[in-house]
Amino acid sequence: MSDTPLAITAGEPGGIGPDLCILLAQEPEPVPLLVIADPSLLESRAHALGLPLRLKELELGQAIAPGAPGELHVLPVALRAPAQAGRLNPANAEYVLDCLRLAVKGCQSGELAGLVTGPIHKGIINEAGIPFSGHTEFLAELTDTPQVVMMLATETGTPGHDLRVALATTHLPLSEVSAAITPALLDSVIRILHQDLQQRFGIANPRILVCGLNPHAGEGGHLGREEITVIEPALEALRSEGMKLYGPLPADTLFTPRYLEQADAVLAMYHDQGLPVLKHVGFGNAVNITLGLPIIRSSVDHGTALDLAGTGKAETGSLRYAIHVAQTMAQSRQSQ
Amino acid sequence: MSDTPLAITAGEPGGIGPDLCILLAQEPEPVPLLVIADPSLLESRAHALGLPLRLKELELGQAIAPGAPGELHVLPVALRAPAQAGRLNPANAEYVLDCLRLAVKGCQSGELAGLVTGPIHKGIINEAGIPFSGHTEFLAELTDTPQVVMMLATETGTPGHDLRVALATTHLPLSEVSAAITPALLDSVIRILHQDLQQRFGIANPRILVCGLNPHAGEGGHLGREEITVIEPALEALRSEGMKLYGPLPADTLFTPRYLEQADAVLAMYHDQGLPVLKHVGFGNAVNITLGLPIIRSSVDHGTALDLAGTGKAETGSLRYAIHVAQTMAQSRQSQ
Repeated sequence: MSDTPLAITAGEPGGIGPDLCILLAQEPEPVPLLVIADPSLLESRAHALGLPLRLKELELGQAIAPGAPGELHVLPVALRAPAQAGRLNPANAEYVLDCLRLAVKGCQSGELAGLVTGPIHKGIINEAGIPFSGHTEFLAELTDTPQVVMMLATETGTPGHDLRVALATTHLPLSEVSAAITPALLDSVIRILHQDLQQRFGIANPRILVCGLNPHAGEGGHLGREEITVIEPALEALRSEGMKLYGPLPADTLFTPRYLEQADAVLAMYHDQGLPVLKHVGFGNAVNITLGLPIIRSSVDHGTALDLAGTGKAETGSLRYAIHVAQTMAQSRQSQ
Repeated sequence: MSDTPLAITAGEPGGIGPDLCILLAQEPEPVPLLVIADPSLLESRAHALGLPLRLKELELGQAIAPGAPGELHVLPVALRAPAQAGRLNPANAEYVLDCLRLAVKGCQSGELAGLVTGPIHKGIINEAGIPFSGHTEFLAELTDTPQVVMMLATETGTPGHDLRVALATTHLPLSEVSAAITPALLDSVIRILHQDLQQRFGIANPRILVCGLNPHAGEGGHLGREEITVIEPALEALRSEGMKLYGPLPADTLFTPRYLEQADAVLAMYHDQGLPVLKHVGFGNAVNITLGLPIIRSSVDHGTALDLAGTGKAETGSLRYAIHVAQTMAQSRQSQ
């Protein structure tokens, strides 16, 4: 299995995804990587960047060793229209999705160890007339997964102690969050988080810190009652199965080092409760991991940065970390 | 004016407030300090801690030099009942409020340069039959202030560049936040924040980063419309008066160093959007500042920690920083 490559989808052809793959290829690969993209796109972008690039085209299923500097293994998918750095073209929406479909197929068959996704542009896919609400939802649909959990992670500077923050709700207006936090939701989210921390991260008995919904975790009901009526009962039921769940805790207490050092992951109730700390710690070099999928998937945490495409100014930190995390997850699965 | 002391209210007599004052007295005072408390309480707590303490009782209006190590200047207020470390007693609720009343009187008359408040216990004051919703509200009432703004600050490690986070709403259930964010609220909160950054922090033209309410600051209306209907118009109106207001920005973008380095303060829309990052950065050593009052007031950001009272384990970091900030604010006012 050690030669089974990780796939990287280069994503939106007008964005920095292709640039990042080329920049990555300039150094020795830490693990065998297979970029899913149009080879001509990579070649022309390498030319624009003034960087050397030798492409080796492969098919799914060929075992490979890590590429040498300047070398990139590619699983070719043809563009539907010419691509230009910095320009979106709805004619290439299906190309972007083709790359993802091929990646999922390879992960499901075991010919790919996991998937690292480069940035795509939701708006231009919608503009092409394709209903599409995001990478994560598309991958869930392709793999018939009823529920996934979004988790972000970043390195803290303490080796072996990454900060991991999973979200109970994600892209919801703030006014709808309270109603979305139900016992059923918390039950399924925490089960997925707990199981994937075990199976994908090799943590035998994960310790999870759970945020309250309200300030001060409701302060005994004075600042909201969801902690008492919804969160506590959900945690209590799962604790009776042996899960190590702490909380609901005030978010501004929980995110201090004294608590974080005792935990493997944090569950925040909503987006802006959990992600500002994570992005602050990670200086923007965070990875977005989809839990609950039958395949391994990590992603850069940034967008297509159209204005940087073709300029050489794109930074590979988030992609490198996403590769590292996907590889760690793949190894953890193999060792079980 | 340089001899006008800062007042410290020792707060709840059963908590760590008295301990902190005694611990503080063991080292040279950075500025003249005047502790408002019952002298016998300080003496018996010093005895419990095994620490030397020489009290100098003063009256309001006496100029003093900073105390020598082991020495504390006290403005005496009599306990209503004996106090025990670690024990709350509703009979002393009025004592706690007496200390605050005296402090406010001294600040208003100019005999005190500002007020640093130690921790109090809201519940025990309510239990005494006194309607009381918090330090900040009580100080607003005593000074006839219609609106105040809560701002927390902490040191970042970069000298001269503290992280400051003000809140548009504070202790509200999350489900009520959206409705509370109105143009009138934002207008008055931002005016107070802007004015106090100028007058109390000596920043001529403060740059304020404003968070959106929704994830991704609403993503152009797809994830909530309050940014478009409420926040943007409020900011635009104030910008036309020359204020440097940036946003509304996604909270998980804004709290990265690249943005924070460009700003003097952040305005978060609600408690758990702004404070987790601040408390994370400050390792719990943050200061709570009340803006909009006619007096200078800073506060420790922790509670009474009843279990630590009398043990010597209380830590003075937050109190020291609160003193530093109040002193800076007092000097900034003098220099104008």
